[in-house]
Amino acid sequence: MCTDGEVKWGLEGVVVTVSSISYLDGERGKLCYRGFDVEDLALNSSFEEVAYLLWFGSLPTKEELNWLSSELSKERELPLEVVKIMELFPRDSHPMDVLRSVVSILSLYLKDNSLSFKNAISLTSKMATIAAYWYRMKNGLPIIPPDKRLSHADNFLYMMFGEVPKFSHLFDKMLILHAEQEINASTFSAMVTSSTLSDMYSAVVSAIGTLKGPLHGGANERVLEMLEEIGSLENVEGYFNAMVSRRERIMGFGHRVYKTYDPRAKLMRKWLCELNEGQRVKYLDIALKLEELVLSRFKDKKIYPNVDFFSGILYNHFGIPKEFFTVLFAIARVVGWTAHIIEYQQNNRLFRPLAIYSGPTGLSYREVKEQIDKEVAL
Amino acid sequence: MCTDGEVKWGLEGVVVTVSSISYLDGERGKLCYRGFDVEDLALNSSFEEVAYLLWFGSLPTKEELNWLSSELSKERELPLEVVKIMELFPRDSHPMDVLRSVVSILSLYLKDNSLSFKNAISLTSKMATIAAYWYRMKNGLPIIPPDKRLSHADNFLYMMFGEVPKFSHLFDKMLILHAEQEINASTFSAMVTSSTLSDMYSAVVSAIGTLKGPLHGGANERVLEMLEEIGSLENVEGYFNAMVSRRERIMGFGHRVYKTYDPRAKLMRKWLCELNEGQRVKYLDIALKLEELVLSRFKDKKIYPNVDFFSGILYNHFGIPKEFFTVLFAIARVVGWTAHIIEYQQNNRLFRPLAIYSGPTGLSYREVKEQIDKEVAL
Repeated sequence: MCTDGEVKWGLEGVVVTVSSISYLDGERGKLCYRGFDVEDLALNSSFEEVAYLLWFGSLPTKEELNWLSSELSKERELPLEVVKIMELFPRDSHPMDVLRSVVSILSLYLKDNSLSFKNAISLTSKMATIAAYWYRMKNGLPIIPPDKRLSHADNFLYMMFGEVPKFSHLFDKMLILHAEQEINASTFSAMVTSSTLSDMYSAVVSAIGTLKGPLHGGANERVLEMLEEIGSLENVEGYFNAMVSRRERIMGFGHRVYKTYDPRAKLMRKWLCELNEGQRVKYLDIALKLEELVLSRFKDKKIYPNVDFFSGILYNHFGIPKEFFTVLFAIARVVGWTAHIIEYQQNNRLFRPLAIYSGPTGLSYREVKEQIDKEVAL
Repeated sequence: MCTDGEVKWGLEGVVVTVSSISYLDGERGKLCYRGFDVEDLALNSSFEEVAYLLWFGSLPTKEELNWLSSELSKERELPLEVVKIMELFPRDSHPMDVLRSVVSILSLYLKDNSLSFKNAISLTSKMATIAAYWYRMKNGLPIIPPDKRLSHADNFLYMMFGEVPKFSHLFDKMLILHAEQEINASTFSAMVTSSTLSDMYSAVVSAIGTLKGPLHGGANERVLEMLEEIGSLENVEGYFNAMVSRRERIMGFGHRVYKTYDPRAKLMRKWLCELNEGQRVKYLDIALKLEELVLSRFKDKKIYPNVDFFSGILYNHFGIPKEFFTVLFAIARVVGWTAHIIEYQQNNRLFRPLAIYSGPTGLSYREVKEQIDKEVAL
């Protein structure tokens, strides 16, 4: 009766839209934003340039870049009422729960909720401020208002740490690498929400909640938990063997689309190894050993480290607590989310799939009720 | 290069799961929950019985029903801190934005966020309280705490109006009719979010944001706006002709799956006509005239009134402001959302579809930058 073969589990291989935003070749390990290799962009451009590129389709002229940088910096402040509400939140709240809640609340104070570039820019700025403010509040520190003169990455780190750290240029590249990746689960959830012609806040809130899961953005936090649990180089093999024998998932490996080395992971791995030459990067030795074991054991299954495997090691090296890792993913990916939300509206069609029904049929309330009463009476 | 034919726009006709929760026959206009016709349930059961049925798969015994009723009534209170935050919200906030925000904030105070029946029950109770509290706050009235002795529908209306109104039995039936409908857009968004193994709050928050759109639950509010705009019986034909000639959508008609009369709309229409025999139901004459025009004009296109066409007229008759209509949909549908979220976990697979890429390829940052600089210099 129910033919399971018709079911597109996880929508694997199902094409849901036509998009000119990014191209992902999982077999060759390539990711391009608007035709530019993500590595090329990470090495040569800035987050602001990439945001312009993803939203508007081409690299900005100097004038266009100045315009966007200025718009982004103008939009950084949160409404005072929203900051006051954040102050009331329990300090042990997870940053992703806070981010999701505060973006939702923003809609009560910022009345324009259209699926527009204006709101895409505003949310990109404000999500960085929410993340930094929550970092300060959580740690019992006074918040540091944004500095308009600084770039997006510099300002974010300044709001967190009170100064622009040396690693800011690398953080900017991390934002670029996380900004977009085709129809991943969080982007898709934002598209589903906006396909009912709901609003920009609702769509981005859906994306944040979806990114949070450990099978998506939440993996970067879990990877660091795993590395902490392993603790030292000599424990790696034991951990690996135990996970394999229990057939459990090793965090940070495998990807629905990449069947070779994730180009972003490759770049992060290179940066980490370079950093490690100067000053020891904690957990890198454990990670590289674990990678070696996974690659040699699962070569045929094409399981490689993904972007979340290395990002946490880098953020940890920067002194960012692991609870904030997924938020760092979100404040970059909001560019991709909003680019897709707006692009899909050009050809919007409500997402409304189907299920195969596998339950009973033809039941009558009265008959079943009589039967239940009879059984109870027995 | 990009073959548009491969794209499953809106996932129309694509099966994404196997489910035993509801069966929808769009050709015959049938909707069954767990094998029971929705009309049979609306006429004979209660919201609590239907919630039990949808969540656990069978009608409850008396004992089971007592257990669920008691669990639901125990879970009605909101944490005091959450009520205090609601008090800070601007009074002109849309109830759906408030509902989405408060459900998100609940996760900061209620630490168990698992994809569990416990949380399904808790959210079903609390969402009704949020809706009623916001109704009171918005109107500058003191909130009325829940009364444990009352049923779900009675208590909700009591929290709104300070008494259990005569129409409560009909409101209970409305909750039943709205409780579930297969993989509609909001349910689907909740499944996408929870497919990353995110949490129950994130998933329900996605669903609320998705339901809000006028192509989904938001339609009931828009229908009443339309009826108000038409204003009187003699304007119906002019309005209809103007909309048809401008090829604009007439709110409350058409459905992705139903290609005949929506069984829920049929039932509501009947109730409205019965009520109208006692006391004139405002806008019903306008609606019936509009229905007549649409049915005769678009017979071949199989366009019929949907659930949102009549629900607003009934809620308006009950004295509920139209801004709250979609919230009334949400506080019922949360049962279906959570039933599907939990069912999908039994066979969870991350939703990760694909896009066909239609943009440029092989661009180089340096080359394009040089080109831009040259053009600007000219």
